[in-house]
Amino acid sequence: MEIAVVSTGHTKFGNASADIGDLMLSACKQALDGVGAEISIVDVIYIANFSSGFCGQCHLPAVLASKLGVNKEITRIESACAAGGLALKEAVLAILSGLYKTALVVGVEKMSETPIEETTGILARAAEKTEIRHGTIFPALYALMAQRHFHDYGTTEEHLAKIAVKNHKNALNNPVAQFKKEITVEDVLNSRVIASPLKLFDCSPVSDGAAAVLLCNEEVASQFTDLPVYIMGIGHDSDRIGLFERENITTMPAVTHAAQKAFKMCNLNPRDIDVAEIHDCFTIAEIIEMEDLGFCAKGLGKEMIDEGRTEINGDITINPSGGLKAKGHPIGATGISQVVEIVKQLRCECGARQVANAETGLCCNVGGSGATAVVSIFSRRYK
Amino acid sequence: MEIAVVSTGHTKFGNASADIGDLMLSACKQALDGVGAEISIVDVIYIANFSSGFCGQCHLPAVLASKLGVNKEITRIESACAAGGLALKEAVLAILSGLYKTALVVGVEKMSETPIEETTGILARAAEKTEIRHGTIFPALYALMAQRHFHDYGTTEEHLAKIAVKNHKNALNNPVAQFKKEITVEDVLNSRVIASPLKLFDCSPVSDGAAAVLLCNEEVASQFTDLPVYIMGIGHDSDRIGLFERENITTMPAVTHAAQKAFKMCNLNPRDIDVAEIHDCFTIAEIIEMEDLGFCAKGLGKEMIDEGRTEINGDITINPSGGLKAKGHPIGATGISQVVEIVKQLRCECGARQVANAETGLCCNVGGSGATAVVSIFSRRYK
Repeated sequence: MEIAVVSTGHTKFGNASADIGDLMLSACKQALDGVGAEISIVDVIYIANFSSGFCGQCHLPAVLASKLGVNKEITRIESACAAGGLALKEAVLAILSGLYKTALVVGVEKMSETPIEETTGILARAAEKTEIRHGTIFPALYALMAQRHFHDYGTTEEHLAKIAVKNHKNALNNPVAQFKKEITVEDVLNSRVIASPLKLFDCSPVSDGAAAVLLCNEEVASQFTDLPVYIMGIGHDSDRIGLFERENITTMPAVTHAAQKAFKMCNLNPRDIDVAEIHDCFTIAEIIEMEDLGFCAKGLGKEMIDEGRTEINGDITINPSGGLKAKGHPIGATGISQVVEIVKQLRCECGARQVANAETGLCCNVGGSGATAVVSIFSRRYK
Repeated sequence: MEIAVVSTGHTKFGNASADIGDLMLSACKQALDGVGAEISIVDVIYIANFSSGFCGQCHLPAVLASKLGVNKEITRIESACAAGGLALKEAVLAILSGLYKTALVVGVEKMSETPIEETTGILARAAEKTEIRHGTIFPALYALMAQRHFHDYGTTEEHLAKIAVKNHKNALNNPVAQFKKEITVEDVLNSRVIASPLKLFDCSPVSDGAAAVLLCNEEVASQFTDLPVYIMGIGHDSDRIGLFERENITTMPAVTHAAQKAFKMCNLNPRDIDVAEIHDCFTIAEIIEMEDLGFCAKGLGKEMIDEGRTEINGDITINPSGGLKAKGHPIGATGISQVVEIVKQLRCECGARQVANAETGLCCNVGGSGATAVVSIFSRRYK
């Protein structure tokens, strides 16, 4: 697969005054400006967005056409919190089809203006209805996964807290992160219980934001940059929507399947990954995904955490951006934001949070309680 | 482009008791059963759906995985009422990429359980916010287009009424149509004014339903059917979301652009089309699209109507299914339902509404007040 990411754009995550159209426009313009390009060079555009429930606007392709002031082929993609990963996949397929040479992918969500009671209801639309009827909204579903992981593998609240601490620490050095606050294990353990054992600081926040990447086929990549980052593989899987429908809730089979497809596509394996952005919507998700991606055996995520092996310049750096936990989680933007961070890491553009000598990176974007997963692998070829 | 539609599925449009998951499942199963295939033969699935606002369920890829009882690559696509056409496009790109040989595309909407006041608000999310603030919801936007078309070209309320009459007549012979009621020009003219000059019978209804098509590359098509229908071309365009942003409101430039791309892809022209399913969300849309697709010059749609040239076995049969007007308009399903009808027409499976010797057909799926358009062209090669 000879598809390169040649530029990125990213708004500051958090509470934005801009509307959803301007958020998209800002990220797209940054990506184009980064290579001195005009919108005219873009053949096709994909938008990742979770729900029009937040800001009352769907038909975002037409909103973006208005903002850009051009007629283009623009398509919106959704599969809960994995919308971004899927939009990247569709852009890859579009270029592989041979019909397009360049693709712009933008993820966006504008959540902050929605009252929190409504926010919970909108998020619940991504879950299975029986589970919601019984009150198991997403924090509760991930809490169940955590409880069972604790029971089966001896993972503890302290392990989860260490993930939150690491991701907050990383975010301190990320200019686009929502939270710039160092926290301690005690802070996490003493924070308000949301759904036991998950506490407030185990949960990702409500955020506004947009992120964009400009892709092109190898043939034209050199017209845009000397620092292309190649998409080596991308895997996707959709699983049963209900957590109760899955045999074992300490694993997300969609993540395993997606990772297997992505690794097979490029003939790499988990040991080849230097840096990864993975979907820590709740801290327990980071541990489960580390295991399901093959970074360690099932149940041994806690040891990697205890030994600091996922910190910046550990064996494999996980969530140097701060992750969903501290960088923020504007749902549709998240999957693309992960790609932006990995591309910047591989291009050595990350300043104080830079992972030394990162040559190969991975993104894992998850939807729902693990029913959708997209895993993508990136590599630079220059030294 | 060597991609064939080898099978179709379609639920009865109207008020359904089934939920959105079962509607999807029903259409998918029909498409698979039609060629005696199991879900295991499907490489990738696309879902077209407009809004989770109606039934409170997004993350439909995971809902469908549950219903099918399998893990698959499933993606949801949205761009207002053109979601179906876009899902077809993504499936085409997926097969052209070389990564997949078969693709199942299902469009779905479950609208009937939503109170009508909420329905209007959900539909308004597809429009430009300033227009909505001033009360120009979709019937009003299309009414403005009609008024200007009347002024510039002499089109009249009677011309619009004749379209409704034709489409209701065609639907009488379509087992899956929502309305089975013959109406007269007087019935239309005497129906309640919705937004002058559009009356109740100029408007498509609120509907539930799903439609599916099974696509594959030419290599494997013969494993499924002796009656493949080939996708010859597909064009897509996104334009400004607001009607006020467009220079001339008697035309939809996105339709013109999408048609030009589709015709160019297969080196055909409007005169080659025997039968078309076009997006008559309001009767005026059928006239505007006839003109923008090149079936006649701008302003001459009314003459084709007066001369009956778009009736079954006219010069070019338009909306033999009954169209959105009479077959129904479950939004996400509509673009795929159009493809189902054209495929069935080209395979001579349409009984009393069959267009004689139809060899080449076209679908035109529109979103919003014309800001999104997808035009696809189909042909059979057997006699």
